[in-house]
Amino acid sequence: MNSEPKISDIKDAHARIQKYIHKTPVATCESINKLSGCEIFFKCENLQKVGAFKARGATNTILSLTDNEAKNGVATHSSGNHAQAVSFAARLRNIPAYIVMPENAPKVKINAVKNYGGQITFCKPTLEARECAVANIIEKTKATLIHPYDDFRIISGQGTAALELIQEVKGLDIVMAPVGGGGLLSGTAICVKALSEKSLVFGAEPENVNDAYQSFKMGQHVKSPNNPTCADGLRTSLGLRNFSIILKKVDDILTVSEISIKEALRLTWERAKIFIEPSAAVPLAAVMSHPSHFKNKKVGIILSGGNADVELLAKEGVFT
Amino acid sequence: MNSEPKISDIKDAHARIQKYIHKTPVATCESINKLSGCEIFFKCENLQKVGAFKARGATNTILSLTDNEAKNGVATHSSGNHAQAVSFAARLRNIPAYIVMPENAPKVKINAVKNYGGQITFCKPTLEARECAVANIIEKTKATLIHPYDDFRIISGQGTAALELIQEVKGLDIVMAPVGGGGLLSGTAICVKALSEKSLVFGAEPENVNDAYQSFKMGQHVKSPNNPTCADGLRTSLGLRNFSIILKKVDDILTVSEISIKEALRLTWERAKIFIEPSAAVPLAAVMSHPSHFKNKKVGIILSGGNADVELLAKEGVFT
Repeated sequence: MNSEPKISDIKDAHARIQKYIHKTPVATCESINKLSGCEIFFKCENLQKVGAFKARGATNTILSLTDNEAKNGVATHSSGNHAQAVSFAARLRNIPAYIVMPENAPKVKINAVKNYGGQITFCKPTLEARECAVANIIEKTKATLIHPYDDFRIISGQGTAALELIQEVKGLDIVMAPVGGGGLLSGTAICVKALSEKSLVFGAEPENVNDAYQSFKMGQHVKSPNNPTCADGLRTSLGLRNFSIILKKVDDILTVSEISIKEALRLTWERAKIFIEPSAAVPLAAVMSHPSHFKNKKVGIILSGGNADVELLAKEGVFT
Repeated sequence: MNSEPKISDIKDAHARIQKYIHKTPVATCESINKLSGCEIFFKCENLQKVGAFKARGATNTILSLTDNEAKNGVATHSSGNHAQAVSFAARLRNIPAYIVMPENAPKVKINAVKNYGGQITFCKPTLEARECAVANIIEKTKATLIHPYDDFRIISGQGTAALELIQEVKGLDIVMAPVGGGGLLSGTAICVKALSEKSLVFGAEPENVNDAYQSFKMGQHVKSPNNPTCADGLRTSLGLRNFSIILKKVDDILTVSEISIKEALRLTWERAKIFIEPSAAVPLAAVMSHPSHFKNKKVGIILSGGNADVELLAKEGVFT
């Protein structure tokens, strides 16, 4: 797949993967609606297979491989959810999954990859170390690389979450997704702009790693500043294919402070009773931090995942 | 209502309250099933109105009052969820709710009572202080006391959670509920034993406040030892009406350590992605601590509530 996905590619992806993934529920919460001044529809990808939307893109990509591409297995690097997703999808196809993970990845994510049968190689927590380790594995095994986001098949797969959301909830004024590498946001934007043209699409990003925001505002791709953020899934730099789509299709990117992410995380847990990971709280943090954009609107938010390690979050001071 | 509830009373209660409460979903979690060696169906009362099953009993009771009983409002004492429930149900009937709360009640529960319009009086955190404060309020206002559990209308209302569960999930081998005052467990037992006679009914209780266990085993009512437990909703002593029903209808009471409650809490959050309060984790803790009772069984668990204050739990060391 060598050209930007169209809505037909997202629909094809949905047909390809729907037997293997969950059609996740859409949840609402009266008390968060009251606090935020808008009506929010949460697409619960925390309840997706492997606990995150990443199951969609990985499954679409791995099921799309030719037998020749698939025969030596697949390889990837990921801080967590994509690693689980590739392991999950490789098992569906009965091929090996070689996973490079940073040595500081949350234990809960490492164990999950092991449970899905992924074969893990640890590396230093830098993009360079990860890419080098994956290249070595691919040279040795001839496995096919499954990139976490900078891939049109991945983007088509991630777009299926928004497809289900806008088929279920009509008349959304705004659809939001967090942005890290940009797989979810670019797929969401293609889908929403094709099927619900009046809806705005916003990305939400931590201030501390605001490369998508900067790239979007300057119209020029910049790398992630690599600062710390509690939203560990969003530390990566925006992909080039993702950036190109986001620049054309996304209406705005809103950034949020660390404290607002923590508050939104607790709101989602304590009020909506939905257990998500910090990255998934970033769009609600944007709603609460930029209320004028959302007043009285009907807002769809993709809750990207629920793979949080509570002990780790407590140690990092996320709750206090 | 002066005699022990029958299944018809629970069905009447359900008809009376169903317009005002949620029919909560039943959730399953593959990974918890694998870990526990049984098939668990979680009845999600954390998603109930006011965030706990208590909405059922309070609504049934307050809607059952005669106009004369209701005209001066209602009063109660509660560490939290019953207080919210009485405030919620009083508002449905447009009468005042006078709520006595211990001064150490979680902030999230105090704020919720205020949001439902309850009028709070704080007291020392002992049963005596609470009962004294309620007596004073009732003398002054002529309000009607709504007991948290030792009341047949409350018991009938709490039994409606099990009613929905066994109507939705057939063939449960075991149905479990946590036990504090015994409102939920006694209502559950009446319902299950009437409609699904082959099912066993188990209560689950923290070892630290094992008065229901002791009372059940000795056949004689004993008071709660008033020890600390992270399952703050279960600190109260078993009610006399509740004890009498439990002794006849419940098959066993299983006790669990504090550490197993914390582990079950994290399992429910991290694996099932369901945000519950510690009291609601006690039945799963019992499953994990007494595996021989549950092997290959089909088990219904009533997740009693989701009103936890994450900051408080972190301070109490629940996550570390």
